[in-house]
Amino acid sequence: MTEPAMTEPMSPDQLEAALRAIGRERYHDRHPFHGLLHGGKLDRGQVQAWALNRFYYQSRIPLKDAALISRTEDPALRREWRRRIEDHDGDHEGDGGIARWLHLTDALGLDRAAVSDGRGILPATRFAVDAYVRFVREKTLLEAIASSLTELFAPAIIGNRVAGMLAHYDFVSPEALSYFDKRLTQAPRDSDFALDYVRREARRPDQQQDVMAALTFKCDVLWAQLDALHHAYVAPGHIPPGAFVPEGRG
Amino acid sequence: MTEPAMTEPMSPDQLEAALRAIGRERYHDRHPFHGLLHGGKLDRGQVQAWALNRFYYQSRIPLKDAALISRTEDPALRREWRRRIEDHDGDHEGDGGIARWLHLTDALGLDRAAVSDGRGILPATRFAVDAYVRFVREKTLLEAIASSLTELFAPAIIGNRVAGMLAHYDFVSPEALSYFDKRLTQAPRDSDFALDYVRREARRPDQQQDVMAALTFKCDVLWAQLDALHHAYVAPGHIPPGAFVPEGRG
Repeated sequence: MTEPAMTEPMSPDQLEAALRAIGRERYHDRHPFHGLLHGGKLDRGQVQAWALNRFYYQSRIPLKDAALISRTEDPALRREWRRRIEDHDGDHEGDGGIARWLHLTDALGLDRAAVSDGRGILPATRFAVDAYVRFVREKTLLEAIASSLTELFAPAIIGNRVAGMLAHYDFVSPEALSYFDKRLTQAPRDSDFALDYVRREARRPDQQQDVMAALTFKCDVLWAQLDALHHAYVAPGHIPPGAFVPEGRG
Repeated sequence: MTEPAMTEPMSPDQLEAALRAIGRERYHDRHPFHGLLHGGKLDRGQVQAWALNRFYYQSRIPLKDAALISRTEDPALRREWRRRIEDHDGDHEGDGGIARWLHLTDALGLDRAAVSDGRGILPATRFAVDAYVRFVREKTLLEAIASSLTELFAPAIIGNRVAGMLAHYDFVSPEALSYFDKRLTQAPRDSDFALDYVRREARRPDQQQDVMAALTFKCDVLWAQLDALHHAYVAPGHIPPGAFVPEGRG
């Protein structure tokens, strides 16, 4: 072991600064695919591929959040976390974040049944997303909560995304992007809670290391999904067997 | 194998009849401890022991229900099942079924912190309840849902319980039993949904066997908790090391 032993815990402010530094370096707003997406450099088929694959991620978020609720004995924490499931599943058919994501895939001309079933998504999408759900099921509660902290960095990317996509793509309307409007208020509320929890609970150096590793892991989950999209759908494009093929390709 | 192979599936009505027969034979309304509890034959310490141990079961119900939600990809089913978590955890501090159970343990003079922590519960309570949560985490979704079907038989026992306890125990008030008032409307709604699901989804003979086994398992979970209470707290009583000791005993 060449790393120096870490004997002193960070203060909550130091920990928060360390977490924000991870986001600055690793959050997927820095991925080149997002530069292309938001800058109007993708064609409709490439945007379809993004929306289709990202739907799989969205569809698994309530499973991840329910797994977290299933692990905590504190009713107050369960109530707080329940809002995330409510946000995604809504209160009735057609309500909630998952349904709003289907507005986007509808607007992009994708078949709703195929999207819902994950037909044609990249295997790497599935592997990354499933790894995230499994992480939340199996790691400590503190790590599970810390892995949600990418939401700290979401509002900035959402603002850029909505503005960029509306400016550049005539096949994208404000209604199609309604998912993101909601997230602009939901994400800060959720990340404030998770950040407070982590600042309060991660007091020992080993816990603080776990928290930073959890956020790094989650950044990897997001980044790997864009890597796979970039490799498959950005020229020259290497669409793997069985994956979605935009019209005029393949 | 001496059992005859089951080649023909039951109709939904036949399956429901088979499930109701399991309840008639195995639901814990038939347990002698409940006869004593509802018939006014227990002293305050024995009722305390029941309420204390049963709280552990109550406290784990949202974890069980969240585990089920975490396993289903159908938003409509998740929304339906979410109500169970809402019922138990409520919408704010002091709301919901778990909080209402604490009204009972408060009224019985038990220390709230000890109850919440499960201090002094019987190991057999923990084993049975944890087995239930694990069952829902690990078995098929169909079996997980079927294991909730004991709620079909709950309204009758609740009616007897509330009437019997109010008639016989001067240390029990209607407010202390408010948990059960809510369950009288919640349980039928929940069991109707689960029964419809099971009638619809358990079509093959092996699935129908799984469903019956799941309900049998759940009856065992409830029965074993009363066995442990009966053994420990009904005369002569064999309270195991570390478990709750009513005043004047031990």
